[in-house]
Amino acid sequence: MSLEKFFNPSSVAIVGASAKKGKVGYEILTNMINSGYEGKIYPVNKKAEQIEGLKCYPDLKSIGKTPELVVIIIPAAAVPAVMRECVNVGTKSVIIITAGFKEVGEKGRQLEQDILQIARQGGVRIIGPNCLGAIAPANKVNASFGGSMPEAGPTAYLSQSGALLAAILDMANAHGIGFSKLVSIGNKADVNELDLLKSFAADPETKVIAGYLENITNGNSFVREAEIISKEKPILLMKSGSTAAGAQAASSHTGSLAGSETAYEAMFTRAGIVRCDSIKHQFDFAQLFAYQPLPSDRRIAVVTNAGGPGIMAADAAEDAGLKFAQLGDETVDKLKEVLPAAANFYNPIDVLGDALSDRYEAALKNVLADDNVDIVLVLLTPQAMTEAEKTAEAIVRVSRENPTKMVTACFLGADKVADGLAVLEKGKVPHYDSPESAVRAIRAVCDYVRWKARPKRVVRLFPVNRRKVENIIDRHLRQQSREIGETESKEVLEAYGFVTPKGSIANTAEQAGNIASQLGYPVVMKIWSPDIIHKSDVGGVRVGLKNRREVMDVFDLMMYRIPQKMPDADILGVLVQEMCTSGKEVILGMHRDPQFGPLMMFGMGGTMVEVLQDVAFYLAPLTADEARQMLASTKTYRMLRGVRGQEGVDIEVLAEGLQRLSQLVTEFPQIKEMDINPYMIGPPGTTPIAVDARMSVEKD
Amino acid sequence: MSLEKFFNPSSVAIVGASAKKGKVGYEILTNMINSGYEGKIYPVNKKAEQIEGLKCYPDLKSIGKTPELVVIIIPAAAVPAVMRECVNVGTKSVIIITAGFKEVGEKGRQLEQDILQIARQGGVRIIGPNCLGAIAPANKVNASFGGSMPEAGPTAYLSQSGALLAAILDMANAHGIGFSKLVSIGNKADVNELDLLKSFAADPETKVIAGYLENITNGNSFVREAEIISKEKPILLMKSGSTAAGAQAASSHTGSLAGSETAYEAMFTRAGIVRCDSIKHQFDFAQLFAYQPLPSDRRIAVVTNAGGPGIMAADAAEDAGLKFAQLGDETVDKLKEVLPAAANFYNPIDVLGDALSDRYEAALKNVLADDNVDIVLVLLTPQAMTEAEKTAEAIVRVSRENPTKMVTACFLGADKVADGLAVLEKGKVPHYDSPESAVRAIRAVCDYVRWKARPKRVVRLFPVNRRKVENIIDRHLRQQSREIGETESKEVLEAYGFVTPKGSIANTAEQAGNIASQLGYPVVMKIWSPDIIHKSDVGGVRVGLKNRREVMDVFDLMMYRIPQKMPDADILGVLVQEMCTSGKEVILGMHRDPQFGPLMMFGMGGTMVEVLQDVAFYLAPLTADEARQMLASTKTYRMLRGVRGQEGVDIEVLAEGLQRLSQLVTEFPQIKEMDINPYMIGPPGTTPIAVDARMSVEKD
Repeated sequence: MSLEKFFNPSSVAIVGASAKKGKVGYEILTNMINSGYEGKIYPVNKKAEQIEGLKCYPDLKSIGKTPELVVIIIPAAAVPAVMRECVNVGTKSVIIITAGFKEVGEKGRQLEQDILQIARQGGVRIIGPNCLGAIAPANKVNASFGGSMPEAGPTAYLSQSGALLAAILDMANAHGIGFSKLVSIGNKADVNELDLLKSFAADPETKVIAGYLENITNGNSFVREAEIISKEKPILLMKSGSTAAGAQAASSHTGSLAGSETAYEAMFTRAGIVRCDSIKHQFDFAQLFAYQPLPSDRRIAVVTNAGGPGIMAADAAEDAGLKFAQLGDETVDKLKEVLPAAANFYNPIDVLGDALSDRYEAALKNVLADDNVDIVLVLLTPQAMTEAEKTAEAIVRVSRENPTKMVTACFLGADKVADGLAVLEKGKVPHYDSPESAVRAIRAVCDYVRWKARPKRVVRLFPVNRRKVENIIDRHLRQQSREIGETESKEVLEAYGFVTPKGSIANTAEQAGNIASQLGYPVVMKIWSPDIIHKSDVGGVRVGLKNRREVMDVFDLMMYRIPQKMPDADILGVLVQEMCTSGKEVILGMHRDPQFGPLMMFGMGGTMVEVLQDVAFYLAPLTADEARQMLASTKTYRMLRGVRGQEGVDIEVLAEGLQRLSQLVTEFPQIKEMDINPYMIGPPGTTPIAVDARMSVEKD
Repeated sequence: MSLEKFFNPSSVAIVGASAKKGKVGYEILTNMINSGYEGKIYPVNKKAEQIEGLKCYPDLKSIGKTPELVVIIIPAAAVPAVMRECVNVGTKSVIIITAGFKEVGEKGRQLEQDILQIARQGGVRIIGPNCLGAIAPANKVNASFGGSMPEAGPTAYLSQSGALLAAILDMANAHGIGFSKLVSIGNKADVNELDLLKSFAADPETKVIAGYLENITNGNSFVREAEIISKEKPILLMKSGSTAAGAQAASSHTGSLAGSETAYEAMFTRAGIVRCDSIKHQFDFAQLFAYQPLPSDRRIAVVTNAGGPGIMAADAAEDAGLKFAQLGDETVDKLKEVLPAAANFYNPIDVLGDALSDRYEAALKNVLADDNVDIVLVLLTPQAMTEAEKTAEAIVRVSRENPTKMVTACFLGADKVADGLAVLEKGKVPHYDSPESAVRAIRAVCDYVRWKARPKRVVRLFPVNRRKVENIIDRHLRQQSREIGETESKEVLEAYGFVTPKGSIANTAEQAGNIASQLGYPVVMKIWSPDIIHKSDVGGVRVGLKNRREVMDVFDLMMYRIPQKMPDADILGVLVQEMCTSGKEVILGMHRDPQFGPLMMFGMGGTMVEVLQDVAFYLAPLTADEARQMLASTKTYRMLRGVRGQEGVDIEVLAEGLQRLSQLVTEFPQIKEMDINPYMIGPPGTTPIAVDARMSVEKD
């Protein structure tokens, strides 16, 4: 059901409207009146005849018409009765401002369930409870006590913190920043962040979607829908608060490296959401997304009247991974015509300290005309001759003449540049308080552009033996055994096309020697026990054993020493295995995030993985392109490509391994965590080997 | 000579004073007059009788008295004559505003040399040329055209960019931020950043030193002096612009990993300088250093009236490495007495959305009284009941009652909190525009506190064979051979107490086999040529050769293959060396920075060093403590300490290796670059081995 009537109702009833200044019921009523709302307003208050010149009604029924929106501000215990009234009079949209629900404990939670049930049965949508309300400037609706009405503008905002929304409103009003909609979602008993995202996506007044969230109600559908919406409109989110999930003990490498923040990061990356660390960044980014075109590439030019800030901008641009544009010869020649001889004609273009607005304008025009430039940042410091206001006018003018290129500004200073800043704001050229802030915003837009241009996601499906995996997992779940040991983990992997090393379990030293001799030397030996997860911690792994005698010695040593360290461990023998001597050790892993599902990991393998933390995460299912991106985003990648005369590994085959694992964990939601570590990967033409693996399962 | 008279002259002559508005000579004259300067002002202008009511003089001599400060604004070519006049009349302090010197090329450079020579001979100090001038608010001196006089305050500022100083002045004036001194250093022909640092250090009005630099005149003395000054007063610097030095080709690992920025970072770390990335950060940090006490530890508590921003502050504090304070039981009990039941009594302390100022005050008092708290950040969002101004008054009051603890604030919003912010500014409680900005400033102060508390620097001197190293280096320099090869590099290292692997050079396969048999197997073989720097790149390194036959094969293979790859290389044979099979591979290195001298490097060794870039840099000479810190600042450190059942290495012996190398490169400035890679380090009780080493030398 559309949320349209929350933002554009033809009539509004305010249940709990008050005549007493300072009361929330008064604030909301007067905010509605003062916003210039053109529909009908019905204050509902049993005791008053009229408030602020409007006739009062004792209840909704006595209005005699159906208010399209009802705002409720009465005490929590009385809300269910009003909800029933809403159903009876036919209202479909209700904002519950009242607090005292889920956030105060079990009793409130029950009350919230009750009103939700009434709403669901009656086909009513609820925003709140425990919220500030909703605002739609273009429709002159301010059904909130967040503050006075902001200007209309292209940004829609949703906030899980009412206090933060009030602060944002105060800041926006001070700087003339406009919004299409503002919603405080409170306890989000019914309408949640995803409902609003979809509503904003469909809203022609909204160009940019921004918000503050502390948690996400349904991770899976959120990421799926947000990805679709992001392609049309940028989504800028602040997300705070590590959840309890991050603190969960994890037994795998992947699990211990993947905090809950990692899953959020991976989700944002997948869905193309622009993450903002603070309100300031969010404001900074939103202005640029709202008012300037998306650049086609990340080549930036800087025009400045002072060398120092120009260098600072260049440093910041380089750090942010932007490309410092190299001007065409023609542009340089033209700049030489229009600027004094002492100017700098190369990027950063220095128009000199005594530049008037005409010099800025001439430089800017020529730089923007250059095909090698996508973005221009104009810096201005207030010097003796500087014309801040006229320069701002010139920037606005030239920016309008170049509707496909991004123009931003940074006027350093305060009073001396204030008039100029006002002109920029009116002219929709975003300005920033430092070159670094400008570059940060530009980078956010460029990253979004890159995300938008990524290839279509096609997940490859490999032919596998699903039945075999099903059997192994089912057996473990029936036996209530969460950990699947090395042997069976490898059977699972083999069913999905991985190759594992040959080997068998020995129960005597003699047997170990026989197995080793059959495999050929050198061999690896590993203690075999369901109770020992990290075998190397207890001396349960020995590599490079070169002859029968060594193998027999190691068998007996493990049998003698390990029970002393772990007297309760059930030891089933020692695995004797062929040794993979060539290739690089990497880790492929998966940790299932409670919110966003399977989180794939890639990193340098062996015991180094937790030390170096050079790992990449991505949400499954992976496309070939995403698998390659995961590899490329680690430092290990350079080594994998081959350094200093060493041959590189087969990158495509490695990416395929990640995709196969991604398919496995997508098809089996029972798999909670898994590591293939080490995964030995060699040069092109060789077959990678899953040397060791572990996984844990749970009922889905 | 003291710079006192620049800031507190009893009389000032302005050569080039003008009656024409907009002219720099007019701006400076009127700035001096309007600042309320109480000394004598002498405008010098050949054509005018009087300007702004002050009698004009045709030249300095005709004043008849010695002006203590002369400000020069006439064209560059005429400056030398005026400088001579200054010498003649006995003026010792001159500010040259005029541009057109070093910055415009060779002719200007000569002119600058000329005036400097006149000054040196006459015992005159110069600020500039090509600068904005100097300001000293407490003495009512504004000998600049940077803007109107700021308030007096505890921060001294020096800037290598005049335009930036003007912008800073404009911003400071808008926010009532005060300064003790402001100096635009221009071309710094004479007075440079270090002179000013020392002057500010001795200035009782200055508590915090801040500045913007593009380069440093004398790196060595700067770092030495800055380190001494930092102990007394914090130095906050912006540094922009990578110099050409960073682009120099480097042939060693250390060199290629150490850009010029690395040297600056290391210098800042050594000298305790607080690096700022932007003007905003610098302002933010300076306020906190200037007005709040240094906290004794980094335990932070947050008091807030809104949950969301509280979580954001907690996230930011954790990211910044601050400790989130755990309140004592007694404090929690007291908070339960003074706050409503629904409040949060644990950190972050939530006083709830309807908190008046009294609730804030009660919470703040109790939290500050807790011994487990060093720092409090107060967050406020403007809600219906919020009293921004009265809350600010309470914060200021409680902050004054707790002069040993750091109190900061963040009031989110704009108009609704403006009165509160004004109270905080007056009350010297720094406030920030976001929790993240507040935490960033707090972290900067905490890092400085930690630096201040570091142990006294005592560099250990090892007994070494200096003479032997001298001979090797001298011989190379005489023969104009920059690179010292492996054998002699190792002799150098042995002279400084390092142990290197045994081995000899073979010229035939037969000889190689003999050497190997003497050493015992396995052995390593390396191609031996002064022309091959990265041996492994050409297949010139083979390890783990297990018998005579393999050794003889490898000899012949290298002799056959390598000349094909490098036909011009002079191949002297093959080194046959014992193989170090145990221990971890690390790299110890040094790159001599042209400005700051020997920059020591530590990192994971082998071919991985450039891939992982997990390295630490520090300026030599190193103390034992600094060597340990270098080790501990890498991720490799965790591996060195021992992970997953692997035994750790001898950390102390490794730190000693760094100190020995530090001594070597400090005693021999001719050594330009060197790597010990790999340096094999084993468990305690074993001797580390410098397996391979290379160094390059240059005439000092």
